[in-house]
Amino acid sequence: MHVNKNGTIMSHGARQHVCTNNAYFREKAAIITEALAKSLGKLSGVIAWLLDNEFKCHVGECYCDTCKSEWHGWLKRKYKTIEQLNTAWGTQIWSQYYQSFEQIPQPSTTPFLHNASLQTMYKLFTHEKIAEFAKEQAAIIRSYSDVPITHNATVFFDLDQALLFENLDFASFDTYAVKENASSYFMLCDLYRNIKKDTPFWLMETSTSFSASLERYAAPHPDGYLQAEAVYAYAAGAEGFCYWLWRQQRTGCEITHGSVISAWGKPTIGYQNVLEVERVRKELEPLLLSSKPMQAEVAICYSDRAKAYFQTEPFNGIQYKQILTGFYERFISLGIYRDIIMEQAELDGYKLLFTPFIPYLSDEYIQKAKAFVENGGIWIAGPLTGGRSGEHAIHTDCALGELEKLAEVDTLFTNPLDGTNTFGEAFGITAELGLWSTIFDTKKGENIGVIKEGLGAGYSFIKETKRGRGKIVMLGSLPLGEQGEKMIEALILHYAKEAAINREMETTSGTVLIPRIGEDATYWVAVNMNGKAGEITVPENRMEWRSNKKLVSGTYEIPPFDYRVIKYDF
Amino acid sequence: MHVNKNGTIMSHGARQHVCTNNAYFREKAAIITEALAKSLGKLSGVIAWLLDNEFKCHVGECYCDTCKSEWHGWLKRKYKTIEQLNTAWGTQIWSQYYQSFEQIPQPSTTPFLHNASLQTMYKLFTHEKIAEFAKEQAAIIRSYSDVPITHNATVFFDLDQALLFENLDFASFDTYAVKENASSYFMLCDLYRNIKKDTPFWLMETSTSFSASLERYAAPHPDGYLQAEAVYAYAAGAEGFCYWLWRQQRTGCEITHGSVISAWGKPTIGYQNVLEVERVRKELEPLLLSSKPMQAEVAICYSDRAKAYFQTEPFNGIQYKQILTGFYERFISLGIYRDIIMEQAELDGYKLLFTPFIPYLSDEYIQKAKAFVENGGIWIAGPLTGGRSGEHAIHTDCALGELEKLAEVDTLFTNPLDGTNTFGEAFGITAELGLWSTIFDTKKGENIGVIKEGLGAGYSFIKETKRGRGKIVMLGSLPLGEQGEKMIEALILHYAKEAAINREMETTSGTVLIPRIGEDATYWVAVNMNGKAGEITVPENRMEWRSNKKLVSGTYEIPPFDYRVIKYDF
Amino acid sequence: MHVNKNGTIMSHGARQHVCTNNAYFREKAAIITEALAKSLGKLSGVIAWLLDNEFKCHVGECYCDTCKSEWHGWLKRKYKTIEQLNTAWGTQIWSQYYQSFEQIPQPSTTPFLHNASLQTMYKLFTHEKIAEFAKEQAAIIRSYSDVPITHNATVFFDLDQALLFENLDFASFDTYAVKENASSYFMLCDLYRNIKKDTPFWLMETSTSFSASLERYAAPHPDGYLQAEAVYAYAAGAEGFCYWLWRQQRTGCEITHGSVISAWGKPTIGYQNVLEVERVRKELEPLLLSSKPMQAEVAICYSDRAKAYFQTEPFNGIQYKQILTGFYERFISLGIYRDIIMEQAELDGYKLLFTPFIPYLSDEYIQKAKAFVENGGIWIAGPLTGGRSGEHAIHTDCALGELEKLAEVDTLFTNPLDGTNTFGEAFGITAELGLWSTIFDTKKGENIGVIKEGLGAGYSFIKETKRGRGKIVMLGSLPLGEQGEKMIEALILHYAKEAAINREMETTSGTVLIPRIGEDATYWVAVNMNGKAGEITVPENRMEWRSNKKLVSGTYEIPPFDYRVIKYDF
Repeated sequence: MHVNKNGTIMSHGARQHVCTNNAYFREKAAIITEALAKSLGKLSGVIAWLLDNEFKCHVGECYCDTCKSEWHGWLKRKYKTIEQLNTAWGTQIWSQYYQSFEQIPQPSTTPFLHNASLQTMYKLFTHEKIAEFAKEQAAIIRSYSDVPITHNATVFFDLDQALLFENLDFASFDTYAVKENASSYFMLCDLYRNIKKDTPFWLMETSTSFSASLERYAAPHPDGYLQAEAVYAYAAGAEGFCYWLWRQQRTGCEITHGSVISAWGKPTIGYQNVLEVERVRKELEPLLLSSKPMQAEVAICYSDRAKAYFQTEPFNGIQYKQILTGFYERFISLGIYRDIIMEQAELDGYKLLFTPFIPYLSDEYIQKAKAFVENGGIWIAGPLTGGRSGEHAIHTDCALGELEKLAEVDTLFTNPLDGTNTFGEAFGITAELGLWSTIFDTKKGENIGVIKEGLGAGYSFIKETKRGRGKIVMLGSLPLGEQGEKMIEALILHYAKEAAINREMETTSGTVLIPRIGEDATYWVAVNMNGKAGEITVPENRMEWRSNKKLVSGTYEIPPFDYRVIKYDF
Repeated sequence: MHVNKNGTIMSHGARQHVCTNNAYFREKAAIITEALAKSLGKLSGVIAWLLDNEFKCHVGECYCDTCKSEWHGWLKRKYKTIEQLNTAWGTQIWSQYYQSFEQIPQPSTTPFLHNASLQTMYKLFTHEKIAEFAKEQAAIIRSYSDVPITHNATVFFDLDQALLFENLDFASFDTYAVKENASSYFMLCDLYRNIKKDTPFWLMETSTSFSASLERYAAPHPDGYLQAEAVYAYAAGAEGFCYWLWRQQRTGCEITHGSVISAWGKPTIGYQNVLEVERVRKELEPLLLSSKPMQAEVAICYSDRAKAYFQTEPFNGIQYKQILTGFYERFISLGIYRDIIMEQAELDGYKLLFTPFIPYLSDEYIQKAKAFVENGGIWIAGPLTGGRSGEHAIHTDCALGELEKLAEVDTLFTNPLDGTNTFGEAFGITAELGLWSTIFDTKKGENIGVIKEGLGAGYSFIKETKRGRGKIVMLGSLPLGEQGEKMIEALILHYAKEAAINREMETTSGTVLIPRIGEDATYWVAVNMNGKAGEITVPENRMEWRSNKKLVSGTYEIPPFDYRVIKYDF
Repeated sequence: MHVNKNGTIMSHGARQHVCTNNAYFREKAAIITEALAKSLGKLSGVIAWLLDNEFKCHVGECYCDTCKSEWHGWLKRKYKTIEQLNTAWGTQIWSQYYQSFEQIPQPSTTPFLHNASLQTMYKLFTHEKIAEFAKEQAAIIRSYSDVPITHNATVFFDLDQALLFENLDFASFDTYAVKENASSYFMLCDLYRNIKKDTPFWLMETSTSFSASLERYAAPHPDGYLQAEAVYAYAAGAEGFCYWLWRQQRTGCEITHGSVISAWGKPTIGYQNVLEVERVRKELEPLLLSSKPMQAEVAICYSDRAKAYFQTEPFNGIQYKQILTGFYERFISLGIYRDIIMEQAELDGYKLLFTPFIPYLSDEYIQKAKAFVENGGIWIAGPLTGGRSGEHAIHTDCALGELEKLAEVDTLFTNPLDGTNTFGEAFGITAELGLWSTIFDTKKGENIGVIKEGLGAGYSFIKETKRGRGKIVMLGSLPLGEQGEKMIEALILHYAKEAAINREMETTSGTVLIPRIGEDATYWVAVNMNGKAGEITVPENRMEWRSNKKLVSGTYEIPPFDYRVIKYDF
């Protein structure tokens, strides 16, 4: 059984109570999977396999004895000798120095905090082991079936999705975001589209109206929102848009969860919306079959390893997804189309790269980004990027290690700025600075953002360095509040302009755009997501795809939760 | 020892740390009780027995091994075969399907939530076992003593009081409600008066001024409040009004608790109030001996089983007592006298029946209420009533099962309305609707409340159906806020008028009325509970009982925390 | 390993995870300490020994089996017979009556609360055992080394510092108070100066700018604050002012903690401030070598035993340090210089003694304070002082036991006043009264504070009794809010005037004064701590020490975070 940090052994009765690293469990799971694969693998109706369900949705690291021994083995493979581990983790404190791998604890309850290296390594170990389990399961299925295999992940599960999907055939995810949280929905679509490049993703689970369990429920969607969600997903690269539940469960712990059909076999509050989704799906089908999502020119890097670093070291309560979403929303506000890409993704075709909130940048990443910059790309690194090593330690050569050297800047200090009334100026905007910050010397490079007041006054918090045909921009601090949002937007716009990012259409707030490309045309799908009629400003020489009519340049309405597709024949 | 949900074994040193299902404990407890009963059972000064003290005040379900095996036995007796349990609970999910009763876990810590059926059954099992223990104890006493037996319960303890008091002779309860929470006090008196019909209840414990323990204390009562409490209790059917503590404890964990006499033997801050209580008790004695509480015409159903359902399934944080109190307060505001009756109570003599917040209505209850309606009663069911089966599952024939059929309505949807800006109209009042709601088709019956805006607009949320000489009124949603309170009050008033509920006197807010009946007169006891002088409007032909003077019809003052008894000779 | 209240066994990996009462641990710790003492004890560079690091910073009572058996032994030595313990603790409730010491539980998780006596005794036992460990360690060192021994404590650790430092040679403490919490800093200096009378203390750990760990960080100091802190500490009797960290840790769980030098070997944000501290230290050196802190005329009693009482019995959430700081801040506001002294300290030389928030006053203390009063001192006792016995029980002779008899007052009631709208008047100020209060009869002595409205109206809450050449003033309640602060300040001023407390200089708020005395001069060190220029009003015949210039009487500026020393040759 799964054992939590406090040593409590999970009871059977819900789900994910088993330790998936347990050898006996793996053996039995393999038998079941093989039996299913053998029986169903060649059936013509089977179009894909979904491994398990929402790995690590409810649990993270397990502290059972199996995990302890697997952990020791993992460490041995990683560090070879205990001396190397001791050096890497800096264990000469608090009796942490280990004589053998067997002495190393799991990061369970202590009076104070475990060593950062130990904590983060235990998370990476956990990530690897669940990806390994998925790989084993997939291998069994592949012996009997040729159809693709996926898993329904999502960003808050305790997974390294890069590892997980490496061995799977397409990406899929679950989301129950409510309308107020639509930007989270956009971010997920932008991410899952890019996990398996050029392979459509599936939205494997979403609600027809609301999610619920015995202990809580979300507000139902307003009528129309489901259709807008579906148009967004399909336009953004989804091949599937699936509901959970089809029929409301009669028993169990999710008896209140929204569904297509009630437990007594009648349409639910979401039913009419499901019919509408099917109507627009059919409407969109020709477009979807003749075009595919366009690669964005702007990439924002996503990293589940960064999430693990922030779990170990949340500074003052940072949650990776939440803080990243805040940054992402600046692009939504500006209407700049973007891809969210994994650390491992290639950077070909991008003009502007953002790596906010990635404490550890691997050497491979830095080499890849260096090549990107030297070939003309603009790379904006930070806030909170590059200050940690691969062992979750502090660099000893300079504050930001290889990134700092590449950027040819000098970090003076790293420290928090929250609560110090420190204000910085950049792009003509003055904003309070916060978060754990990197303060740069002003001597080298361009000082784009300078501290005007407070700690570090006179020094720089945004630096720009030319390198090859491109630039590295170091963002050392997080501008706060409304002015801070404006400053980040000004920064994005400034470099989007420099990078000549294509922003051919504009919409009013609450209406979003997704570009697609076909054989001889581009299509911009505009969807109203806030339920208040929006507008799109269309340039010359565009067609409305649905009506196949030529549009004069100007402003067009998008009715609540409706969409328009603007076509341009090239 | 008692084991909590997380597996922590309770330490000796406080109270309720023992598992009362443990056979060895029961054996020793029986020996002690027998010794006491034998020695004291025939003493003339012994007027009653109080079993134990506040069963399940600090603990709920126990997770020890004794309970595990008792649980399995209980399930076997209830379900006969494991297959019937599997079907009832719908265990074909998450490996829940059980091959034997011995496999069934207690609902201890899991990564997610246990099956609702399992959770609720474990609560009912717990309720039955403590009632069984009380029954065993009572049986021992009855072998040696003829005086009545009670137990000091209260609404928040983890008990099914219907089961508990079935085997006891009179009801009693403890309360330490502060003045601000007076409606909770009224509700308890209205409930405990009716648990053992026609048998006076005891207020077994209340404070002379304030409750306290090492870790918290309540604000002391203002001078006079204790007297008002006592008048209320006596008028409402109490035979005893007892203080805890008599003398402040010198040691232990309740050393700060209010008392009559301090640890050093002097009067406390509450002492003068105790003398006042004794003065009014003597004053009231002739009235109390010559009359008894009148049965109300309005009954509100109370159910500890419903409380268990809400513990398993709190929707968005519902606490049964709290939400029921909010509903109950509408009757206080209107000055409509009411009984709170157990599910098991007969409905004879009532004209208006309310069953709010009772997820599961048993067949017996529905038959009883049906007869009540057909004989001319008006039954108002909901919010949140009838949607669950006796297994804590969803009905599969229609949303509300037998209730829906009896009411001859068609439920379209059940879903939350919170946060959806949905507004309904009834009795000329428009209010926001919230909570998990039942939305009805408008076709059949009378549409008393209709959704005007938001989800389900155009459909009905209050339905009225004539049946026999009475009516069933379905309240599908909870109207929210001040407008919502007005709507519920309008609903109560509307049907109180239809049912010709006797409302012969009115008081200002903060002054409450309790009717009593003697051989040839009725008495309305008006008590001021808020400490600000109140008023009572008295019709013609009434006497003031205390002065035995005739009153002219009109308005009379009730001084702060004082009372008047208005007598009517019939 | 240390075991917490819930029975969770601490994991190795952080610090303080070991049970320091474990015999095997003590044996090994002794071996290590002996080896260190032997090797280093005579080295000329070794100027002092610091035992361990921050005893009981992260943990309090341990619940392991070693502690259980030590606890039983401790109880046997204290109570001799089980009968005496049963009587002292009043165990005739809830089956607490014990037949043998071995039956007595540790105060681990129970359904309700453990007996107050048991809880408090377990805390005192814990305090004694850690002091015993320190004593053992010190004894080993003393066999090999002559330099003094200390330990870095602080007020929030779970220690009885009087016991701990009894066997050590000088006091030292750690603090990371931020500027907003400067009064806490002053209080610590005022306390640690007096723990080992006439022996300078060390500030063993403070941050150059901010404290931090993986999970949180504090706001950095504004530039200049560190210098002000250092001047304050040196003036107030510190011999050492040490930084933690010198160099930022590369690994572990405190990698973000502020330091002098970064992990990559560069100056940190605090570095310039460290240089400033060294500059002022050199500047002050002649003063520090030729004078010492003057004893205050006002003493405020500090008691770690009182802290333990409040941990057992927090009333409505009282935290000893926090509530004491609030009281202490009144002296800071008034600019009255004060010592914080341990319960055990002699009272010679003081004129005014405050003992707020000390539930248990020992007989020795009462005798000492009685002599103090009879010799002309004024003793102000309360709030919340004297109401508990040495067994954490209630007195049975009168509310406040010996204190009440000594003060010759009659307590009528003790009860909370919070939330009762009770107002008292004293010194012409009317304020709401709160907290657990003692209400006195008005008959005997002077009624300085009288309840005007609410509970206990007409009775007294501040009493004054002449005794010998002095006075005892009983403060029965805590005046609340701004008016309450004014009332406490009026009380302090009133009795400071009566006691002829020397207040020869005044400063504006945010600038504080520390007096020192040399062979033929006194020195008042004025430090600006709020970073806004302050002012000091200087009488005639004073010199400025730094410039050695005569000052005309009048007002002088103290620049932000700067200081002035005003000298008076006597």
